[in-house]
Amino acid sequence: MSQLQRITITPDQLKDESLILTGAQLHYLKRVLRLQTGDRFIANAPSHPWLAALTHDHCAQLLEALPPKPPLPVHIHLIAALPKTGFDEVVRQSTELGVGTLWPILSDRTLLKPSPKKLERWQRIAAEATEQCERTTVPAIRAPGPFQATLTQMETNHRYICTARCDARHLLEHLRSPETSHSRPDIPQIAIAIGPEGGWTDAEVDQAVAQHYRPISLGPTILRAVTAPLAAIALIQSHYTLKNSILKTEDAAPPPQIN
Amino acid sequence: MSQLQRITITPDQLKDESLILTGAQLHYLKRVLRLQTGDRFIANAPSHPWLAALTHDHCAQLLEALPPKPPLPVHIHLIAALPKTGFDEVVRQSTELGVGTLWPILSDRTLLKPSPKKLERWQRIAAEATEQCERTTVPAIRAPGPFQATLTQMETNHRYICTARCDARHLLEHLRSPETSHSRPDIPQIAIAIGPEGGWTDAEVDQAVAQHYRPISLGPTILRAVTAPLAAIALIQSHYTLKNSILKTEDAAPPPQIN
Repeated sequence: MSQLQRITITPDQLKDESLILTGAQLHYLKRVLRLQTGDRFIANAPSHPWLAALTHDHCAQLLEALPPKPPLPVHIHLIAALPKTGFDEVVRQSTELGVGTLWPILSDRTLLKPSPKKLERWQRIAAEATEQCERTTVPAIRAPGPFQATLTQMETNHRYICTARCDARHLLEHLRSPETSHSRPDIPQIAIAIGPEGGWTDAEVDQAVAQHYRPISLGPTILRAVTAPLAAIALIQSHYTLKNSILKTEDAAPPPQIN
Repeated sequence: MSQLQRITITPDQLKDESLILTGAQLHYLKRVLRLQTGDRFIANAPSHPWLAALTHDHCAQLLEALPPKPPLPVHIHLIAALPKTGFDEVVRQSTELGVGTLWPILSDRTLLKPSPKKLERWQRIAAEATEQCERTTVPAIRAPGPFQATLTQMETNHRYICTARCDARHLLEHLRSPETSHSRPDIPQIAIAIGPEGGWTDAEVDQAVAQHYRPISLGPTILRAVTAPLAAIALIQSHYTLKNSILKTEDAAPPPQIN
């Protein structure tokens, strides 16, 4: 089953026992994936995936409602200062790694003003990557805004700002500390802010700290603006994936000693 | 000091109190970074970095031997099946994230045969990235070889193979388990094998398991061949960076309870 190709659909495409395919989806299934009439694929709807089969009338037949995949164990808000180039790939790879909401921001050292078409482009890339990586939900991407305004919109409990070349504690150390790990909300929310080429200005770090962001390090090397988000998201997502599986074990059995 | 630009040099460039710059280094310092005669920069030699200043005769004056940066806390051997496109960026980003040795391999599902010039190109990219990210050592890149031959050359204690869509334990869970964490060698060696688009064949996974590679997962989504190496390296490097700092604290003070 898991080897079947997947597309992402919206609820209004479902009509009785049929799935009305968009032109782009039809092209993808028939031309790119070369599926034939009768071939099966998976249609990811927001509630749960469907097993579907292509019919000859530009639609697909819904065969079976599949059990929903469990949601990702953490909602990561990535606040990313727009780099000069390479943000398309940040969107694609962050989506694969499980970002929840992407907040592109303009910082003091950001050199470009993105055109309004960029947001649509990023949303399209995120939707494509969601299908490819077999996620069930597409991450939200906000319109680019100034750093200060984005800082104040964030309502997450845990907020971090990545600062290079200083003695901040490692992100993984923060994640493992009792204050972070002893809460047990449904889906924890984590915000992480990553600076542009050249880093944040001192004023920006001060603003973030005033909004309860903790400065963190991602290790002994200096990561580029297109690499740091991936490392941060991989660490947060992996930490909570593991924690979730440990919590499930605890729910099922007497609590073991976890070291 | 840490804000100064860095270049990487070889020992034979050092002559008495001077540094003989190559044409490419001169171009980089004068044209790209726009340094002037007298401007200071850091020259990373294999033993330790030097503080240097540009002179007017295409050389630089060595001003001061700087203390060596501590080595990275783990030597990561990345065995990466060559993807159709995007391997240049894997080399660049793996270098930033701290890969030790990169083994590009040809797998059953690898579609391309790389030209011999590719290896030189990757080595050049790795050297550039080493300077940019302020590492002191350039990662080694081996000539592309068949998977089976590479498997048998690996002498590391801990070996993992990334397998999508199966119930393998998460890489981070393996790293945290006592069998991995209770050893205290000088610099641990870890090998991680990442498959191509379409994944490893069953035969390849069997071959790896026979060579004591453990199947691991990188989380609930399916990562592309250009993204999975970055997540794996970020996790391994961060785990050992943190462990190293805890070991240092233990050496200096009575052992605390670590949870």
